[in-house]
Amino acid sequence: MSQIVVTLPDGSELDVEAGSSVEDVAYEIGPGLGSDTIAGIVDGELTDKDEPLYEDCELVIVTEQSEEYLQVLRHSAAHIFAQALQRLHPDAKLTIGPPTDEGFYYDVTGVELSESDFEALESEMEAIIDADYEIERVERSRDEALELYADNEYKREILETEAADEETVSFYVQNDWQDLCRGPHVDSTGEVGAVKLLSIAAAYWRGDEDNDTLTRVYGTAFESEADLEAYLDRREQAKERDHRKLGRELDLFSIPDVTGPGLPLYHPNGKAILRELEAFVDGLNDAQDYDFVETPHLFRTELWKQSGHYENYVDDMFLLDVNDEEYGLKPMNCPGHATIFQQGSWSYRDLPIRYAENGKVYRKEQRGELSGLSRVWAFTIDDGHLFVQPESIEREVNVVMDQINAVLETFDLDYDVALATRPEKSVGSDEIWEQAESQLRDVLEASGMDYDVEAGDGAFYGPKIDFSFRDALGRNWDGPTVQLDFNMPERFDLSYTGEDNEEHQPVMIHRALYGSYERFFMVLIEHFDGNFPTWLAPEQVRILPVSDDNIGYAKQLKNRYLGDFRVEIEDRSWTVGKKIQAAHDDRVPYMLVVGDNEEEAGTVSVRDRFEEEAKDVDIETFRAHLEGEVDEKRIEPDLVE
Amino acid sequence: MSQIVVTLPDGSELDVEAGSSVEDVAYEIGPGLGSDTIAGIVDGELTDKDEPLYEDCELVIVTEQSEEYLQVLRHSAAHIFAQALQRLHPDAKLTIGPPTDEGFYYDVTGVELSESDFEALESEMEAIIDADYEIERVERSRDEALELYADNEYKREILETEAADEETVSFYVQNDWQDLCRGPHVDSTGEVGAVKLLSIAAAYWRGDEDNDTLTRVYGTAFESEADLEAYLDRREQAKERDHRKLGRELDLFSIPDVTGPGLPLYHPNGKAILRELEAFVDGLNDAQDYDFVETPHLFRTELWKQSGHYENYVDDMFLLDVNDEEYGLKPMNCPGHATIFQQGSWSYRDLPIRYAENGKVYRKEQRGELSGLSRVWAFTIDDGHLFVQPESIEREVNVVMDQINAVLETFDLDYDVALATRPEKSVGSDEIWEQAESQLRDVLEASGMDYDVEAGDGAFYGPKIDFSFRDALGRNWDGPTVQLDFNMPERFDLSYTGEDNEEHQPVMIHRALYGSYERFFMVLIEHFDGNFPTWLAPEQVRILPVSDDNIGYAKQLKNRYLGDFRVEIEDRSWTVGKKIQAAHDDRVPYMLVVGDNEEEAGTVSVRDRFEEEAKDVDIETFRAHLEGEVDEKRIEPDLVE
Repeated sequence: MSQIVVTLPDGSELDVEAGSSVEDVAYEIGPGLGSDTIAGIVDGELTDKDEPLYEDCELVIVTEQSEEYLQVLRHSAAHIFAQALQRLHPDAKLTIGPPTDEGFYYDVTGVELSESDFEALESEMEAIIDADYEIERVERSRDEALELYADNEYKREILETEAADEETVSFYVQNDWQDLCRGPHVDSTGEVGAVKLLSIAAAYWRGDEDNDTLTRVYGTAFESEADLEAYLDRREQAKERDHRKLGRELDLFSIPDVTGPGLPLYHPNGKAILRELEAFVDGLNDAQDYDFVETPHLFRTELWKQSGHYENYVDDMFLLDVNDEEYGLKPMNCPGHATIFQQGSWSYRDLPIRYAENGKVYRKEQRGELSGLSRVWAFTIDDGHLFVQPESIEREVNVVMDQINAVLETFDLDYDVALATRPEKSVGSDEIWEQAESQLRDVLEASGMDYDVEAGDGAFYGPKIDFSFRDALGRNWDGPTVQLDFNMPERFDLSYTGEDNEEHQPVMIHRALYGSYERFFMVLIEHFDGNFPTWLAPEQVRILPVSDDNIGYAKQLKNRYLGDFRVEIEDRSWTVGKKIQAAHDDRVPYMLVVGDNEEEAGTVSVRDRFEEEAKDVDIETFRAHLEGEVDEKRIEPDLVE
Repeated sequence: MSQIVVTLPDGSELDVEAGSSVEDVAYEIGPGLGSDTIAGIVDGELTDKDEPLYEDCELVIVTEQSEEYLQVLRHSAAHIFAQALQRLHPDAKLTIGPPTDEGFYYDVTGVELSESDFEALESEMEAIIDADYEIERVERSRDEALELYADNEYKREILETEAADEETVSFYVQNDWQDLCRGPHVDSTGEVGAVKLLSIAAAYWRGDEDNDTLTRVYGTAFESEADLEAYLDRREQAKERDHRKLGRELDLFSIPDVTGPGLPLYHPNGKAILRELEAFVDGLNDAQDYDFVETPHLFRTELWKQSGHYENYVDDMFLLDVNDEEYGLKPMNCPGHATIFQQGSWSYRDLPIRYAENGKVYRKEQRGELSGLSRVWAFTIDDGHLFVQPESIEREVNVVMDQINAVLETFDLDYDVALATRPEKSVGSDEIWEQAESQLRDVLEASGMDYDVEAGDGAFYGPKIDFSFRDALGRNWDGPTVQLDFNMPERFDLSYTGEDNEEHQPVMIHRALYGSYERFFMVLIEHFDGNFPTWLAPEQVRILPVSDDNIGYAKQLKNRYLGDFRVEIEDRSWTVGKKIQAAHDDRVPYMLVVGDNEEEAGTVSVRDRFEEEAKDVDIETFRAHLEGEVDEKRIEPDLVE
């Protein structure tokens, strides 16, 4: 038999017989690893441990210790759910049921379900887990599979499309139940430690609004009850912090139906925060000599054809007809910036040119996918485009990285970083890709950041560095990005005169520090649970007069000492307790309680939103503290500790 | 015969016989006025002096001293042009030829014209003027008129539409030439002192793009050669200052064809000025406790139906279809702001609520009417909407007037003010109109401003105060506006709880301080001829090293002393003379020439853009002066005088 070469994660190579399974290779490495093997990752794809290997490949062995283990376990949990469902509702028809980042779902039809059915389903799932059925992979001919699914047009469609060229297909069997599935799965149902059904939603077959509507049941699974409890606890916290809920309670924004879905209106409180966020990045851009530009939201589609967005993006664009010509709302700011650059005549001495715009873009997401500020039709990118000499990429990326660092530090957010390199389909010469990737690598190495390399995950037009924020609940969100682009300068025929007096093509760098204001705002709302750092808080200080007699003193404090801050006076005739509660609900960083004693002494009693108190504080002392906290953009009030 | 009552401008009343002409009434007032009479204004409409009066009316007698005289004279000049044209080109077909603010035009067809024909036409016009033909009004039956115009389908169309119900129509005859015309005209061609043809453009019959294309010839006329010369001189200056020309030369903005007409892109220099303009009004709004909001550019048309814009404005709106629902780009910001207000629950203690937004709006003007920044598809309003108790209108309008005054003073622009009152068709009770108009009047009286009352010119939804800017060339441009609105609060069902615990409807005040950024920017470019006040200038200081050896000193000056300003260093190896010329062309307010002498002494030689010089200025002195000039927003550099 012929031999193949299997490359392991540490770079070592192993010669094995062609046709060996993932598990065989694991046993070859060591008997311990062999018996621990749950699945494999072959050339990046999760596969069953029985999968035979016929060609040279890269292999990662998945065990209970692997990150991917939870994914395998959740896939098995989806099967357990489906088996339980069909036990209780024999008419239920299955379609697909994959694992997700948070658990799993199964799209089903032929049965009416509501959350009140969850208890019975969960009991049945636990019975299946307790029975600890062996989970077995079985290969069947495609014809046999088609016959088995005579009544299920969805599974038949899968067999006739994705699996059309296969002679055999795999089923996973547990007890008297089976499902068409590529796997992988755990060895037995008992391995799934804890399950929970979470919610029901409507979904379309293959995600297409024109197809049948299916019922999607979301659930999750963990190795242990303790892990499940911890997850449900985080989920409950996330619900409490949901930016849609807080957005309403703190009167930050709204997305009323009459105005349209995915088109947020920012109320005064929300816009106050956005203004601070804008001023912060504008300041970072000013400090790096960016030039600000402004481009409209409407353009002829001719521009989008030139940029290539029309070809790749037309389904997501809002298009309209004006005097029999086609126009589109901008889904991106870059072609407008390229058009401005294009009109100048540039020498190498003028470069780099750095354009910045807080530009609102419009993308037509499916209505069903819209959600609060996290998925919208209209969002503002803190966009920047740099036109640079190829040899200056490293210096310019460093400029951007300094800006990104300023954002990460200021908001005290954890993050992950990835370098995405050349994909199979790409434009630009080998030379420029190598030069560009090595410059990005040098920047990351010099920065001392931990980063992943996502080989082949770059854009077709250039390599990039992507950041994702990790919030207080451990969730990841798209964040800053730095993308090199060799394509748009070509499409817009951009050039500059080099020191050699010849025309050269600049490289374009697309970068955003927040990503989008909407997404970032959402992350901040949930990360801080509405307790925005004082510099961002729409209302920074509320003065609470103990009685109406103290309102005059409150006004004096506000006007004479606190004119530079966002200060309100609570002048309703409530008890101090009720006033404190209201300020607390509104997440106001500082409450100044002022009664006769304070008025006589010319002081204030300070309370922060975390219920710490300091009595008899001199107003100048408080003002100076507040000024320091705001100027330094400190995360938490810390006068009173 | 029966008598009618004619009311004169001083309010006095005159009883005259019904059927008396305008001229008869003038003779009744006095024989001098009678013989000076050129035309009349009857109930606001300019009419021939022979016009018989059959009903009570208001009458103004037009003489050579009246403002309207120039209009009459120019109308006659249009006839002189038409007569000259038909003498030289007998096939030329006439359509309409009215007077305008700047002169007159005549739309003609059946003849090919270019500006090279102007000389011959002007000679012919002068011959007609020199001949001093009497201009006579002749009434003809409509049938006779139709026969006369057997070959002219345009004049026939007028006779069959506008004049369909008339038995007779008026012609004006001079020598052997005549034209269907309502008049009025001067007595003889010799009264037209000076004429000049200006330009040729394409126009559509009745301004409709679907109709025939006509040739529009623009000309002007004055009482004297001296007046004409003065006008042509101003026109030449205006051409030199044309914001489209300066916009290109100073690299402020562009409207490239590929991106679409009427959709400006602001380049770094233009956006630097816009940022200062934005910061200035934002500061005025912050000082008056406005709340900033942000609304998207795209809304369901449901919103525009609710606001009434759809009904009245749909032809000017950019509409699009999204998932089979109609959406529109916002032509105004008010409905979005009303929607935000609508979601709150308000007490009289919360009012006034003042919302501000620099909101870009989209209006589909006819392509032929687009021009630079003065007529565009996309423009940003420095918009504000105040929701106020009816009894607080005066106080709130005063707040806005203070803001407008700050704008007028800062830019040192002359202006005109008009109070526009209730039109015939209007919404809202008599009581609220009276209350509102009297409050606006009180504000204007207290302000000490001269203002015109434009009776009946208010919006149907409320009275308003309109400002227009008068620029350095004496031209007027739409400026700030304060409009009361009783309609939108009704349509959006807005309310607040009054002190009486009942629900009340607030009055909405729409106001803009600049009007639109685009229009205001255009006015500033032309008013200042590109010599923007230093606080606005995109580049405030340019340092000109005498030789490359002085570049180090230039950098030191820039970084150590001028970090807060927009400063560039001219580092090309040019002669100082060439460097000065370039800075001069770029309208840079201050040039700092630094050579070895300055470097040794630690000084600079200052030159301003008006070619004033000061040698050996201490850098600290210059910096302090510059800071003062920028902080105080002074109009002109004045270090060196």
